[in-house]
Amino acid sequence: MALDNPPCETPEAHGRELGARARTALPALAKATRAQKDAALAGAATALRSGREALLVANAADIAAARDGGMAESFIDRLALTPERIEGIAAGLEAIAALPDPVGRVMDTTERPNGLLIERVAVPIGVIGMIYESRPNVAADAGALCLKSGNAVILRGGSDSARSTALIVEAMRAGLAGAGLPEDAVQAVGTYDRAAVAELLRGAGGTVDLVIPRGGKGLVGLVQREARVPTLLHLDGNCHSYVHADANLGKAVEVIVNAKLRRTGVCGATESILVDRAVAPAFVPMLAEAFAGRCELRGDGEAQAIDPRIAEATEEDWGTEYLDTVASVAVVGGLDEAIDWVNTHGSHHTDAILTEDHAVADRFLAEVDSAIVIHNASTQFADGGEFGMGAEIGIATGRFHARGPVGLEQLTTYKYRVRGSGQTRP
Amino acid sequence: MALDNPPCETPEAHGRELGARARTALPALAKATRAQKDAALAGAATALRSGREALLVANAADIAAARDGGMAESFIDRLALTPERIEGIAAGLEAIAALPDPVGRVMDTTERPNGLLIERVAVPIGVIGMIYESRPNVAADAGALCLKSGNAVILRGGSDSARSTALIVEAMRAGLAGAGLPEDAVQAVGTYDRAAVAELLRGAGGTVDLVIPRGGKGLVGLVQREARVPTLLHLDGNCHSYVHADANLGKAVEVIVNAKLRRTGVCGATESILVDRAVAPAFVPMLAEAFAGRCELRGDGEAQAIDPRIAEATEEDWGTEYLDTVASVAVVGGLDEAIDWVNTHGSHHTDAILTEDHAVADRFLAEVDSAIVIHNASTQFADGGEFGMGAEIGIATGRFHARGPVGLEQLTTYKYRVRGSGQTRP
Repeated sequence: MALDNPPCETPEAHGRELGARARTALPALAKATRAQKDAALAGAATALRSGREALLVANAADIAAARDGGMAESFIDRLALTPERIEGIAAGLEAIAALPDPVGRVMDTTERPNGLLIERVAVPIGVIGMIYESRPNVAADAGALCLKSGNAVILRGGSDSARSTALIVEAMRAGLAGAGLPEDAVQAVGTYDRAAVAELLRGAGGTVDLVIPRGGKGLVGLVQREARVPTLLHLDGNCHSYVHADANLGKAVEVIVNAKLRRTGVCGATESILVDRAVAPAFVPMLAEAFAGRCELRGDGEAQAIDPRIAEATEEDWGTEYLDTVASVAVVGGLDEAIDWVNTHGSHHTDAILTEDHAVADRFLAEVDSAIVIHNASTQFADGGEFGMGAEIGIATGRFHARGPVGLEQLTTYKYRVRGSGQTRP
Repeated sequence: MALDNPPCETPEAHGRELGARARTALPALAKATRAQKDAALAGAATALRSGREALLVANAADIAAARDGGMAESFIDRLALTPERIEGIAAGLEAIAALPDPVGRVMDTTERPNGLLIERVAVPIGVIGMIYESRPNVAADAGALCLKSGNAVILRGGSDSARSTALIVEAMRAGLAGAGLPEDAVQAVGTYDRAAVAELLRGAGGTVDLVIPRGGKGLVGLVQREARVPTLLHLDGNCHSYVHADANLGKAVEVIVNAKLRRTGVCGATESILVDRAVAPAFVPMLAEAFAGRCELRGDGEAQAIDPRIAEATEEDWGTEYLDTVASVAVVGGLDEAIDWVNTHGSHHTDAILTEDHAVADRFLAEVDSAIVIHNASTQFADGGEFGMGAEIGIATGRFHARGPVGLEQLTTYKYRVRGSGQTRP
């Protein structure tokens, strides 16, 4: 297993060493032209394709070790690379190269009465720690988004994908070197000692600006609790779809089936369905029929009384992100109760209303305090690609810096550039 | 001394109680119209003016106690209110009322090929903890900025201004009540036990979204070290003015005298002057002449050799924010050395270049990693008012959410509002 950065004396020192190396890469990254960054990404794609056989061998060794370790087949599937998946990773790098450069955008311009020209300009954030689990493609996706936005990244994936990740990182670094950019823009943590992760979460001696976790609730919760630097993350995606009394019920069923079942494992999947009392007798059986044999429904007493196919929900269900073929159903007394319910039980991630009354929709969109609020569409649109961002590194439910999908623009901050001609302040 | 919120059993419980009360104010604040918020500010201004005599009496008691405690006259001056200062505070509230409402701005709009309309809309951040020192006007300024941006604020000023602050907060709450808005949008911590501040810095049980400190380095450093919630702050303002070889030297002297001496106690004051070796023999004596008797200059060996009026600088001087009539002077070998010097010794706050060469200026503006970079103007323009923001709550040198002056727009975050007509995701 090739490790780019042999650990120092201690895991903590290794974390700080990675951070320091990443910082030395920042000036060149910040002033890199779009052409250079795109060339680095294209070079990485080429290196990945030409190194395909070696990557498949390394991945087979990762898989064998995981099987020896008794990992479940669903885990093995996330870990596994195929020629098609490797081509997908390479194509993903090229797709990010094709996106506009988020660095250098002039976000606002003000000309002051004294003649000063003040521009707000997008600049990279700095050094980003990316902590994820077993999917080897995250190294390429996250590495490419950070590189394109002028940030240096320190990757720390799960130990199960160590051999695969090392080769993907090597391809990224070959692309950087070929484009005349510092290889240390993309580094991987060279130890699986958790003390190295803890050091990154502490900021690695002031060298790490931001940590982004990607993975299950255990990992994200750990990062949320332990990080002493800013993070962009979401812990839960307990998303709601609310069927208002003035919904088109046929359309509502269709949208909610998609919102729940298109993919059950994504954070934008609807987990809880609210139904106005006025339409519950008509709607709940339509819902139960559409979900029959495909998704378990757990409801409150009213929903159960309407349709016997609905199981009993406990209080815990209202706050649960199932990520599975289960959904909860509750009957509510109208818009106010629905807004209150979502703000109380939801995760401030993505919540939708189904109604033909636009004034009602406007109130839901205004008063539900979530990163994404939707009228008459599936909550599964909660995705940077679907928002037109081209790609995303994750979705954030915090209130700071970025909320919702985190794409290239959200991976930048800004500076003010002021041009004068000798002005002094009175 | 009137305290709106008598402490609970413990200071920690008091902090959490304030946070919980602030959160109950949020829904009404978030949907308050501009007219309501402006009426609350106007009402607060009226209440301040009509309560002027009582406020002067309370302030006199604060001053007497501070004098008894042996506080310096400069401290007393910051603490003292006069009829003019009270009028200034009231006028400040009206000025913030006159600013545009930052909430509800549509920041971007995207229409997707599938017909989804995606808007990014500015919304309040939530509950803001404001921790400051002895100036009573901060309660009104910060309270007004938070109110106008739809945020609830918990104010914790220095104990020396307790009596004055309580009456100012009372006026703010009277304005809120008169406009039909929740009084708990503006609260003051009812104890000076530091454990209550510590609780706010920990987030007060998840009720506080952001902490902003305003004051000296001791206070800001404490907040930076202890906060477990996001902060907007700057610890230092070690600002530089760099005289490039192609500067107009007469203009440079004029700008730097203003940058250093207009007010020495502000964070945007220049503390360190860099001079290109090529023009040092001409410029350093001009500078020494302009500063003679007004400001001590401490220089490196080269600067001292050029002009005997320059004292000896130690290594420590290069990193020092004097906030006084002292500046450091160093001779550098050109643009690259200057950029490197500023990025190494500066505070990422505000740094300026003086040159007539626009290509050189562009490189300095691009490569100096500071919140504000300036070409040919005084660093003392680092101010929200001068940037056209109308008012500022502080200046941030972190890289997250907001950088530079923090005005009304920077006190908001955003949500995505998605409107569809039954779209499902393929």
